[in-house]
Amino acid sequence: MHLYPNSLAALIEALRKLPGIGPKTAQRLAIYLLHAPRGEADALARAITEAREKIFFCSVCGNITDMDPCELCRDERRDRSLLCVVEWPRDIIAFERTGEFPGVYHVLHGVLSPMDGVGPDDLKITELLHRLPKESTSEVILATNPNVEGEATAIYLAQLLKPLVPKVTRIAHGLPVGGDLEFADTATLSRSLLGRQEL
Amino acid sequence: MHLYPNSLAALIEALRKLPGIGPKTAQRLAIYLLHAPRGEADALARAITEAREKIFFCSVCGNITDMDPCELCRDERRDRSLLCVVEWPRDIIAFERTGEFPGVYHVLHGVLSPMDGVGPDDLKITELLHRLPKESTSEVILATNPNVEGEATAIYLAQLLKPLVPKVTRIAHGLPVGGDLEFADTATLSRSLLGRQEL
Repeated sequence: MHLYPNSLAALIEALRKLPGIGPKTAQRLAIYLLHAPRGEADALARAITEAREKIFFCSVCGNITDMDPCELCRDERRDRSLLCVVEWPRDIIAFERTGEFPGVYHVLHGVLSPMDGVGPDDLKITELLHRLPKESTSEVILATNPNVEGEATAIYLAQLLKPLVPKVTRIAHGLPVGGDLEFADTATLSRSLLGRQEL
Repeated sequence: MHLYPNSLAALIEALRKLPGIGPKTAQRLAIYLLHAPRGEADALARAITEAREKIFFCSVCGNITDMDPCELCRDERRDRSLLCVVEWPRDIIAFERTGEFPGVYHVLHGVLSPMDGVGPDDLKITELLHRLPKESTSEVILATNPNVEGEATAIYLAQLLKPLVPKVTRIAHGLPVGGDLEFADTATLSRSLLGRQEL
């Protein structure tokens, strides 16, 4: 006996492919979608198809967008001389939430990771190099993640960019706001000492 | 500035309606679906629509099915005199996984829950009463969950069914297999004593 009707099995299988969704969660979500109001399930199916049809990457900065160039690249109020380099479009969303960055972005779409076979040619580095003279960038902020791959990518980019732009900076490392000294790892603690600032 | 293009915002909104999916997870899943191979996102959208179109509830037992009566109700090898009453279709899947239940099922589609306004008329109890004489049921096993609502529903059904079938039973309570006496709650422990069996 099959545990599920075929079309339910297919739905569970499709949900399981999502990141962080295991077999139990996939089953729960699938059965929820069967019981949910008709409109809700339809809306989800339609939203997936529409997002795939309408969203692409900005030809300038690589952000996700439904118009080219994207809303951020069109915005006249953004300071084009300040360029923040991030790994993924979601990092732009994180910075925009702070409301404190006046410049523009460039999305690498990944980090250098020899273990996963990701080299410089797999990232949007050529596009970055082409932008710099056009936008007369005065500072590039390297905002890759503070982990091994992110650090290595930042160091690689810094060497590449230093001859081309007046200033190349890296986002600060230190204790997270609201964090606790007692629970901070030694690497973070020593970074917070090295990066200390005068009050 | 909008944080997301419209169609991405719509997708995040639709994903957030799923149970256990918060705003962060919804954003992560949505961005994954944008980056995923085209076929994978399409397959998910199609699977949702198809499951909604093809799956309904078996007119006999209330299980989810794509044919009526369902595969379980059609199966000649199942012992029709033994009827297991469960809350939801997923409970059937759980019992079928054990491979040890030879009988048929009846899905209540809920439990009595005065707090949530669920009374006997909201459950598939009328359907259950109609089945019993037709299938010459000799035993009804009440397999609602071992919590307050499940117990109350089992007690209510037992009173209703006792005049109609030779035997009405309740699934056993006790220590879970692989569990630890030290961590068992007192209610479970006292149930495991009350239900002790001779070796």
